[in-house]
Amino acid sequence: MLTAEIIAVGSELLTPERTDTNSLWLTEKLNEIGIEVKLKTIVGDDEMRLEETIRDAVKRSDIVITTGGLGPTEDDVTRQVSAKAIDRELVYHTELEDDLRTRFERWGREMPEINKRQAYVIDGSDVLPNPNGSAVGMFARVGEKFLAVLPGPPRENQPMFIDHVLPHLKEVAGTVFVKRRNLRVVGLGESALDEAIAPIYTAYKSVQTSILFNKTEVEVQISATDTDETAAKRTADELADKVVEKLGVAVFSFNGETMEEVVGKLLTERGLTVSLAESCTGGLIAERLTDMPGSSKYFLEGAVTYSNGAKISRLGVKSETLDRFGAVSAETAEEMAVGMRERAQTDFAVSITGIAGPDGGSEEKPVGTVFIALADAEGVRSMKFVFPGDRYLIRWRSSQAALDFLRRRILKANEK
Amino acid sequence: MLTAEIIAVGSELLTPERTDTNSLWLTEKLNEIGIEVKLKTIVGDDEMRLEETIRDAVKRSDIVITTGGLGPTEDDVTRQVSAKAIDRELVYHTELEDDLRTRFERWGREMPEINKRQAYVIDGSDVLPNPNGSAVGMFARVGEKFLAVLPGPPRENQPMFIDHVLPHLKEVAGTVFVKRRNLRVVGLGESALDEAIAPIYTAYKSVQTSILFNKTEVEVQISATDTDETAAKRTADELADKVVEKLGVAVFSFNGETMEEVVGKLLTERGLTVSLAESCTGGLIAERLTDMPGSSKYFLEGAVTYSNGAKISRLGVKSETLDRFGAVSAETAEEMAVGMRERAQTDFAVSITGIAGPDGGSEEKPVGTVFIALADAEGVRSMKFVFPGDRYLIRWRSSQAALDFLRRRILKANEK
Repeated sequence: MLTAEIIAVGSELLTPERTDTNSLWLTEKLNEIGIEVKLKTIVGDDEMRLEETIRDAVKRSDIVITTGGLGPTEDDVTRQVSAKAIDRELVYHTELEDDLRTRFERWGREMPEINKRQAYVIDGSDVLPNPNGSAVGMFARVGEKFLAVLPGPPRENQPMFIDHVLPHLKEVAGTVFVKRRNLRVVGLGESALDEAIAPIYTAYKSVQTSILFNKTEVEVQISATDTDETAAKRTADELADKVVEKLGVAVFSFNGETMEEVVGKLLTERGLTVSLAESCTGGLIAERLTDMPGSSKYFLEGAVTYSNGAKISRLGVKSETLDRFGAVSAETAEEMAVGMRERAQTDFAVSITGIAGPDGGSEEKPVGTVFIALADAEGVRSMKFVFPGDRYLIRWRSSQAALDFLRRRILKANEK
Repeated sequence: MLTAEIIAVGSELLTPERTDTNSLWLTEKLNEIGIEVKLKTIVGDDEMRLEETIRDAVKRSDIVITTGGLGPTEDDVTRQVSAKAIDRELVYHTELEDDLRTRFERWGREMPEINKRQAYVIDGSDVLPNPNGSAVGMFARVGEKFLAVLPGPPRENQPMFIDHVLPHLKEVAGTVFVKRRNLRVVGLGESALDEAIAPIYTAYKSVQTSILFNKTEVEVQISATDTDETAAKRTADELADKVVEKLGVAVFSFNGETMEEVVGKLLTERGLTVSLAESCTGGLIAERLTDMPGSSKYFLEGAVTYSNGAKISRLGVKSETLDRFGAVSAETAEEMAVGMRERAQTDFAVSITGIAGPDGGSEEKPVGTVFIALADAEGVRSMKFVFPGDRYLIRWRSSQAALDFLRRRILKANEK
């Protein structure tokens, strides 16, 4: 099995506030092709320590990947230090400078002189294009070993790794196949889930199954390894199918898709539309739904009715309802959904009203109390939740529950 | 200034799901007494790599701290490897074994034979008691250097560090105070910013200044160190003031506050209200503003008018305007803002319409084209932007520019 080391570069990663997270994604991709990560280093903009780290890593491990430190400023040292660590020179590429100038022109800005530094690359290395930023990457062979030098931002290094590093590594790693399935579950706790499915996954000795907790969801990660690709896939799928059978509709994602992706796909497939009336989530549900390209097909509009006045004038909530039951009530939520659906003329309207905190809770309605309503051609129904957590988590969990309410409704409509 | 390295030991920290977080807490504690963390390593249960890592660390840095790998099982190798790395023997302590036996008896269990391994410590090191677990820590002087070997679980290593390591290190480090300032800047690139302020910060030799790029903002982190607390604060503030003077209104945050915090504070202080009409950002601006507790005081409502129909019926945008100039135009943005402000009766209304991509761009209006308008008592004005990046970044940058547009307007109104 080939071994890898990952080196994250940047003094900000050595502060109490920040930590390297690039390596998690890279580790996943490397593991998928049977490469094991043996060591990770986080080093600042410190030429001596970085050089020693790269030099040692190349000695010890088959594949070394650095992330970060390729920016244009003085304290971005990875370019020259990585060259030095493998005893190479940096060479200047005119076409890289030309390309940089063109980019800056397109943004309507003149290229600062210091960006010229980004036109230098390690002698004899492949230049890895970066469509999402100004720093190109580099891929160098060092004897039998490989050094990949990537920019820090995930939006730059991830596509670069997939397009230009992974194909090389696959070739080198040969044939070990790791097939993963990632099931995401809503409405079930970590231990309840484990109790339910442990008898299933423990029977698969060659499969690694992890249960991870992440904000509002629990994930079941299944990872089957085999020298035969079909067999690896078959084992992963078989175990995943059994887990899905056991858990039913609580599994909303069969391959790691987000809730907004799943809901968007269901709406698109059925040609249905939705509108939203949000209070405590303040636009978060709309933001999540519209994060998907193509969401304008199914999402027509949303109202963020934070004040009572807005609930009345924008959604037609009755002021008697607000007086009698309060803004945070099933009655208000239902009127919000019905009013939104009438105005937007959508198949579904989802509304939400609640107390995200930290203030505003009472004995009867503590912080975390949330009402979600869904209106469609058949009428309106609502649900009450009391979510634990801080303001951020309560808002996030509310948005997840609202989207899940819609998901279950669409699936149910389908059964008929 | 003394330097430190932190080594986290454990194969589970090299999986895609987990990362070391002990080092963040340790870094904070070290920084507080003026010790800088220069490198962090995460290494598995791998004797060769761990030994090399500890050996190099002790050579390079004044203080080396390891966490983890002190359990009783075969794959807990830190005890013997750390001894070997500093060329010492492990010695057996009867009293440690007795203590372990007593603990197990108290839990009503017999001590497993393998726990005997935890009675061995590095020759000549201080034994650090662990009231919360079975693994003691070790503190060894290696010439002028220090090696602290701590257990992995935070509830074991944190009290151990505070009670038995920190007092030693304070003595060695002497009294050094570190004062930080964190300025956040909008509308300026990393390199342009560096060009503008490098002449200022390079004059302060004793201050560490880092320029960090984070989505749409650039951060200037200033960290002044002095043996006198007042002097450290004075230096940090003085440099921060000069940077602010140079950059002017582009500095929106003087102590790390987010844009939504800053805008929320400005609105609250002045008793002003705002409403939002969003298209391409799909609720993101509302979501950011309402992320702040107490935002209901200044944010009354928002409309997410994704479809043309919603722009017309909810905001009163004229269909001729949409036909003639398109949904993504200054004219539409301005009518959206004016319509929103009239309906919501707020002091300000901010609107946004643009092309977040990946589809929908044209030669004339490429992906990233965004119009932002702001309506107030004096009328309406709009700005055009062309943002680089993918859908996520375009939406985020748009939301930031819209909030910044509002911020600058409030500050300007104030000048009069």
